[in-house]
Amino acid sequence: MLLCDIGNTSYHFLDGEHHFKESALAFDPSSVTEQVYYISVNADVSAKLKTLKNWSDLGVYIDKTLYYESMGIDRIIAVEATHNGIIVDAGSAITVDVVEDGVFMGGFITVGINAMQKAYASVSPALAGAFHFSLDTSRLPKNTQDAISYGYLKPLQTEINSYNLPIILTGGDARKLLPLFENAVVDEMLLFKGMKKLLHKTLSNL
Amino acid sequence: MLLCDIGNTSYHFLDGEHHFKESALAFDPSSVTEQVYYISVNADVSAKLKTLKNWSDLGVYIDKTLYYESMGIDRIIAVEATHNGIIVDAGSAITVDVVEDGVFMGGFITVGINAMQKAYASVSPALAGAFHFSLDTSRLPKNTQDAISYGYLKPLQTEINSYNLPIILTGGDARKLLPLFENAVVDEMLLFKGMKKLLHKTLSNL
Repeated sequence: MLLCDIGNTSYHFLDGEHHFKESALAFDPSSVTEQVYYISVNADVSAKLKTLKNWSDLGVYIDKTLYYESMGIDRIIAVEATHNGIIVDAGSAITVDVVEDGVFMGGFITVGINAMQKAYASVSPALAGAFHFSLDTSRLPKNTQDAISYGYLKPLQTEINSYNLPIILTGGDARKLLPLFENAVVDEMLLFKGMKKLLHKTLSNL
Repeated sequence: MLLCDIGNTSYHFLDGEHHFKESALAFDPSSVTEQVYYISVNADVSAKLKTLKNWSDLGVYIDKTLYYESMGIDRIIAVEATHNGIIVDAGSAITVDVVEDGVFMGGFITVGINAMQKAYASVSPALAGAFHFSLDTSRLPKNTQDAISYGYLKPLQTEINSYNLPIILTGGDARKLLPLFENAVVDEMLLFKGMKKLLHKTLSNL
């Protein structure tokens, strides 16, 4: 049995202790013969999987009344895995969700690191460049690299810290954001934990 | 005599009391026969203007030691126009600069409204959509439109408010941001004020 979290750019598989990624565009899901429980925010991949009998969508087991209709299943599963905390899932988007005493309080979405870098470059070649994640955000910048890094990262850092909750970083870019958050933990397995929890709950309810 | 502020997407002219815009791509600056004092952050347009005798670059009169080398001339001119305040220039980029007692304290740059909307859409079609500028940012969102609006606007709002300085909104999208900032003023003429001030100072020093 495999677990799989499908995002906009990749399939993220868990096979026992081992996890690995495949490209969302290039990977052929019919090449997998094992039973796979998956979640997907990728409409193109979801459409393919509907025809494959060994791929089971875990999304159908969610109590959707606890969430809002258009909320991504990846965010819901991360919330399901968390009792108390602010979850920062840094992938092609960065989603931020707040859970207090097991209750989803709401959340927001910003653009992920790669897309944001492209967005700055699209505005002006003068703003093209990599972000400086170990920036001292206590001082206003006086050069362009710091000015774009600060503009993207400082307001996000302040907003996330303002909840005074444990910060859980997950997603492919989790480690890049780590220098911005004292005491944050990186948990690359958070979504798999949520998927396992949901499977256990579903089995217990049978 | 005309004043002209040239950005990434347009020429912004001041002719006496009247101001108007022309497309940065389509407008032919050699069609102007009057004397023009200009500032430009647009390298393509700047290159064209170097060959036109009646277009004079105001940037040469700036004391660059007060700023940093790669700082856009539009930001410098906005700072020159301000004694005390936080200047939010909302165009294709949003630049935010802090001036205290006439001294430039530093500033940062984020992506402008249009480019940010495109950036969300580039991440996922589910995140395409217009921002909701009159969002209640005191509550965590529970729908996608609010989640992207909050993700872009709330952290920026908090950061700008944190300086406890008068907030001056300028640039083409200034009015869109106005609902986010109590007591902010919109000043579309800020850069022209800075340009006039610099011209006066330059003449006085002759």
